[in-house]
Amino acid sequence: MVTEIEAKVIEAKKASITLASVSTDMKNRALEEMANALDINRQAILSANVRDLEAAEKAQRKGELSQAMVDRLKVSDSKIDGMMAGIRDVIHLEDLVGRTMSSLELDNGLELYQVSCPIGLIGVIFESRPDVVPQIMALCLKSGNSTVFKGGSEALNSNRTIFNILVEAIEKVEGIPKGAFQLMETREEVMDILAMDPYIDLLIPRGSNSFVKFIQDNTKIPVLGHADGICHVYVDDEADLAKAYNICFDSKVQYAAVCNAMETLLVHEKIAEKFLPKMAQMLEGASVELRCDNRSFEILEQIDFINKLVRAIEEDWSTEYNDLILSIKVVNSIEEAIEHINTYGSHHTDAIVTENKKKKKKFADFVDSSSVMINASTRFADGFRYGKGAEVGISTNKIHARGPVGMEGLMIYKYVLIGNGDKVADYVGPAAKEFTHKELNKKLSDVITENKV
Amino acid sequence: MVTEIEAKVIEAKKASITLASVSTDMKNRALEEMANALDINRQAILSANVRDLEAAEKAQRKGELSQAMVDRLKVSDSKIDGMMAGIRDVIHLEDLVGRTMSSLELDNGLELYQVSCPIGLIGVIFESRPDVVPQIMALCLKSGNSTVFKGGSEALNSNRTIFNILVEAIEKVEGIPKGAFQLMETREEVMDILAMDPYIDLLIPRGSNSFVKFIQDNTKIPVLGHADGICHVYVDDEADLAKAYNICFDSKVQYAAVCNAMETLLVHEKIAEKFLPKMAQMLEGASVELRCDNRSFEILEQIDFINKLVRAIEEDWSTEYNDLILSIKVVNSIEEAIEHINTYGSHHTDAIVTENKKKKKKFADFVDSSSVMINASTRFADGFRYGKGAEVGISTNKIHARGPVGMEGLMIYKYVLIGNGDKVADYVGPAAKEFTHKELNKKLSDVITENKV
Repeated sequence: MVTEIEAKVIEAKKASITLASVSTDMKNRALEEMANALDINRQAILSANVRDLEAAEKAQRKGELSQAMVDRLKVSDSKIDGMMAGIRDVIHLEDLVGRTMSSLELDNGLELYQVSCPIGLIGVIFESRPDVVPQIMALCLKSGNSTVFKGGSEALNSNRTIFNILVEAIEKVEGIPKGAFQLMETREEVMDILAMDPYIDLLIPRGSNSFVKFIQDNTKIPVLGHADGICHVYVDDEADLAKAYNICFDSKVQYAAVCNAMETLLVHEKIAEKFLPKMAQMLEGASVELRCDNRSFEILEQIDFINKLVRAIEEDWSTEYNDLILSIKVVNSIEEAIEHINTYGSHHTDAIVTENKKKKKKFADFVDSSSVMINASTRFADGFRYGKGAEVGISTNKIHARGPVGMEGLMIYKYVLIGNGDKVADYVGPAAKEFTHKELNKKLSDVITENKV
Repeated sequence: MVTEIEAKVIEAKKASITLASVSTDMKNRALEEMANALDINRQAILSANVRDLEAAEKAQRKGELSQAMVDRLKVSDSKIDGMMAGIRDVIHLEDLVGRTMSSLELDNGLELYQVSCPIGLIGVIFESRPDVVPQIMALCLKSGNSTVFKGGSEALNSNRTIFNILVEAIEKVEGIPKGAFQLMETREEVMDILAMDPYIDLLIPRGSNSFVKFIQDNTKIPVLGHADGICHVYVDDEADLAKAYNICFDSKVQYAAVCNAMETLLVHEKIAEKFLPKMAQMLEGASVELRCDNRSFEILEQIDFINKLVRAIEEDWSTEYNDLILSIKVVNSIEEAIEHINTYGSHHTDAIVTENKKKKKKFADFVDSSSVMINASTRFADGFRYGKGAEVGISTNKIHARGPVGMEGLMIYKYVLIGNGDKVADYVGPAAKEFTHKELNKKLSDVITENKV
């Protein structure tokens, strides 16, 4: 028996085969239709959102929903502008489908092409933010991937309205297969979706750390993303202190509630007494609570203007505060800093401040994180800042895609071998022909096209 | 409490950080030492293997072990030659560690480098074949990955002897960290290894389909490989029949026991009556049993020299025979062939025989397989034939690596951002600086090297 949700997933998977070959022009036309449709249907979106907001505020008053969740749920006219701009940005991104990544002559007339193609069917599971739907739908459409969305029940009306507007707009464009995009609505379906590993090729979760962790722990489908963001800045004894103040302040204070903000400051013992007091003063000025190891505590407790000073406990080193709290530790060497980062960090983003080139190289080589910053703020680790145009997510995975991931994270490849009746038997045994394995620099699209019969 | 196996895994993981930065020269020297050590210690290897073989033959007589397993277990002098040649091949492969994959100016003096690096810790779980140890150890060493091996108990003595010889050889080379390579020995440890997802970044299983399937079903660690290999050849009505005979015969008969051999032959109805009788005769000559759908059965039952003819049942379309058995189906169109392949196939390797360019493109676009062959045998889908020098495995995954995978499948990347005290706050708000996002064509290794202080 195929359940309703399974039927939707199978329909999307089936459509993905056709969607993979839709032309760039068609996809861009559909993206423009999506943006326009949001513009035309503002009123419907806003009033659906009001219904969700009313219910959410009631739940918030009962303590069932956090204020932050309610805030993220809200859609305004300017948020709709943002959704539209986001979709139009994707029009300008290069279409990665069908690029020839390598071409190799195996033998005369036997040519191997490695060609990029969509992954297939992407599952997107998200909390609150209804703006996830247009953003991911645009990226998946442009990359030729079918998508199954599962939003939280608190955003049911907003998600449904936005989804229906967008799908109707896409399906106006002839040639785009029906059913490529699906929305799952009821709450029970999260576990069902997590069990759809025969069909869903990749999951993208959007939500809190615990939400992502739950998904990672309950599915066999590969998950693109990260749970924790425990990022460090290490201030070396050969640091330029002016840079160190800037980088540490920015990494902690510029936006504390995000995954690429600094959670732990590591300072070389030789420079700690000189560096920490002024740094602490700056952080104190921004209302940051400081959780210090014994050595940094001893340095800072002598300074009477520091109020928010507490002693760190072991747990602090592996805590993502996502808040104006910072743990501080004095280390004896760059090696101890690296060891601390690799042990307690989340392999997300970690920075060094130093003028010594050997240490820059050592830190870049030995810190096992998706982004390593040398004399720059951890906050730069972000798809937009990394020039990706749009961000699928930040991944701390060790395979496929790591760090800020753009549309390239939604692509894989296939091999196409073109022969002329070739058989392996000719390349085996005493009279075996030899492979030439000669690079070709040819494009598959020049070799087999629809225009030639 | 850290178990013994956990301690080994943690040691390997720790060593991986250092191994990631070992120079190409050192790694190549260690590979040469490995090959030499096998040569010098032939007698020890052969006599350890004899002990395993004696036990295995006893088990085989009791029906506890298949003859094929016993055959795969056997190490001979020429197999040791093969192991040595395999290791020396890896010396000549390009070192992929530290390659700058992209470089981008974010702003003046703020430069982003994407640099390839090892994945970290690879887990290798394999049945019988003791030659897996030198092959994978060579590939993992060259790619800078630590490795945990878990072989079957039937090869305990062979694996242990080969492993110890190789590790001793590697550790002779100064600078290569101790503990990077580990061997697990007792049977119970398979499940333990599958639960080591906090440490092991990628699993490579080597063994039967059911063995690989068991591993895929019982771990949260990403698995590189494939369970089934249900490959098809579709003979189109516009096929050159001389090519079709060659390709089909080679795909089925050249080596039937492997994953890239044809299991199902699809024939266009317009050409079936002309094509099938001679094809069946050739296959009959090679003792292939034919399992036919109704239409192909009707054509072939009229031919009196065909003896091995049976009617196919539904199950045949999703069966990997790995043997001299072939299912045959007549289809009405290329669309029906593609639909059949995407439904019943294993997304491994599928071929079309046609002279029509539109159909070549359609097949390449719509068949969702890691290798698509156009007028070539399915048997070409193999790392060596694809010019990879050495094969990690053939993957039917939809992320990371697909098709025959060489050393590139053991690599990931990190981002290194080099600044000069840069902070994100400068790029936010009304007076925000703009990112330049200008391609650089620079190599990180030219920018930060150990030679400059």
